[in-house]
Amino acid sequence: MENTLFVLKVGGQVLEQPEITQSVVQKFAAWPGPKILVPGGGRKASRIAQALGSRPNMHEGRRITDRETLEVVTMVYAGLYNKTLVASLQAAGCNAIGLSGADGNSILAHKRRGTIIDYGFAGDIDSVDTQGISSLLVAGFTPVFCAITHDKQGQLLNTNADTIAATIAASFAPIKAVSLQFCFEKPGVLSDPEQDDSVIPVLSYGQYQNLKAAGNIHSGMIPKLDNAYRALRSGIKQIMISDQHAIGIQAGTLLTL
Amino acid sequence: MENTLFVLKVGGQVLEQPEITQSVVQKFAAWPGPKILVPGGGRKASRIAQALGSRPNMHEGRRITDRETLEVVTMVYAGLYNKTLVASLQAAGCNAIGLSGADGNSILAHKRRGTIIDYGFAGDIDSVDTQGISSLLVAGFTPVFCAITHDKQGQLLNTNADTIAATIAASFAPIKAVSLQFCFEKPGVLSDPEQDDSVIPVLSYGQYQNLKAAGNIHSGMIPKLDNAYRALRSGIKQIMISDQHAIGIQAGTLLTL
Repeated sequence: MENTLFVLKVGGQVLEQPEITQSVVQKFAAWPGPKILVPGGGRKASRIAQALGSRPNMHEGRRITDRETLEVVTMVYAGLYNKTLVASLQAAGCNAIGLSGADGNSILAHKRRGTIIDYGFAGDIDSVDTQGISSLLVAGFTPVFCAITHDKQGQLLNTNADTIAATIAASFAPIKAVSLQFCFEKPGVLSDPEQDDSVIPVLSYGQYQNLKAAGNIHSGMIPKLDNAYRALRSGIKQIMISDQHAIGIQAGTLLTL
Repeated sequence: MENTLFVLKVGGQVLEQPEITQSVVQKFAAWPGPKILVPGGGRKASRIAQALGSRPNMHEGRRITDRETLEVVTMVYAGLYNKTLVASLQAAGCNAIGLSGADGNSILAHKRRGTIIDYGFAGDIDSVDTQGISSLLVAGFTPVFCAITHDKQGQLLNTNADTIAATIAASFAPIKAVSLQFCFEKPGVLSDPEQDDSVIPVLSYGQYQNLKAAGNIHSGMIPKLDNAYRALRSGIKQIMISDQHAIGIQAGTLLTL
């Protein structure tokens, strides 16, 4: 596994509690090989937006990013969350370097278009600069990507953190063995969303389609899994979905095609 | 000059106006050799702190950094300002990478101690990781440092941007030819603070002491110049103080020992 690139997405809700964040930091720092962390956003952005007098505007679980919201998420995701996490990782002996997609032109995106809803400054990813990111990995840095990208025309954009993690992993897949893990508040994909002990250890794409049709997998899990299966098709060696206890170990749900 | 490392500090007031920022971005992007940008803070941090209900607390021109203020400056300096500037530099063809001192453990500091005033989370710099920063320069990145450092124990700290620029430049001086430029809202060091055409083209340390004693140089210029002469003594090849028109050219005030 030493040469496998480990890409870990950790949900914003997981990182709301300081002691859990500390446990995530320790586990991620202890992972020996090259690695990339993608933390999700949390409720702080909404709280700060509210305090500054702007109101979070959501459509089907996705934030509509007006100019004020973009300022707030840039402050909170690229600034406060990212640097606090980097400082914690540095204290744990991990040489973290916090980045947005604008930094080093790592993640190029365009403003979402062609939808009925105007998502504002929401960015859909065009490309990941694997060469630039590789040069950071080779120099011994561990990138920590926030959910901000850019269009190379000077415009920052807000991009879903799950998508960032999946796209980074998929972009590296043709040149490197990649293991992608989504860590959220549940121990894995559940066959019964009400029962935490109903974790499905291995979930094939066919089974996923059946469980979705039967209504066992619904709402927020659907874009997450669609995203993950898309990434798996790009040649990622392994994708796991789990809670923070399973970071870097074989537990939770393993996705297969 | 191709191999000279160019370190440019640009004052926060200069960056308050979008068209001047754009001119700074264009000039800095056009500079051919290895380079580092250190933007200062601006009034936005105070405005946001106020909107969030915390009150800026100053002592002799230095901000007293309580926990809330540290959160705000981390959001504004490391997040909003840094990423907006990085995106503009990327649009101008400069491969900028925005960093705090925590990123890559670039700038190690400690919480200021032994003063009568408790400056809170204000960081005095211990060391700059020239090796790590060099690896970024060699890989083709242009670091943009915000005024945030860390103590390697997980604590972010607020450090004066002039000091960051001077200390980075001084740390590289033993291993590289370094040119340091402080760009602020005046065309240089003025012999008469009221007359913009009274720029002193060359200012020796002795002349500075005389002008300071005579009261011609006072208030904010004193820490700026003390800082600069300290850096000059470390072996920096050239230090210029100027406004944004003189970025990368020989104009403004050249400091000599």
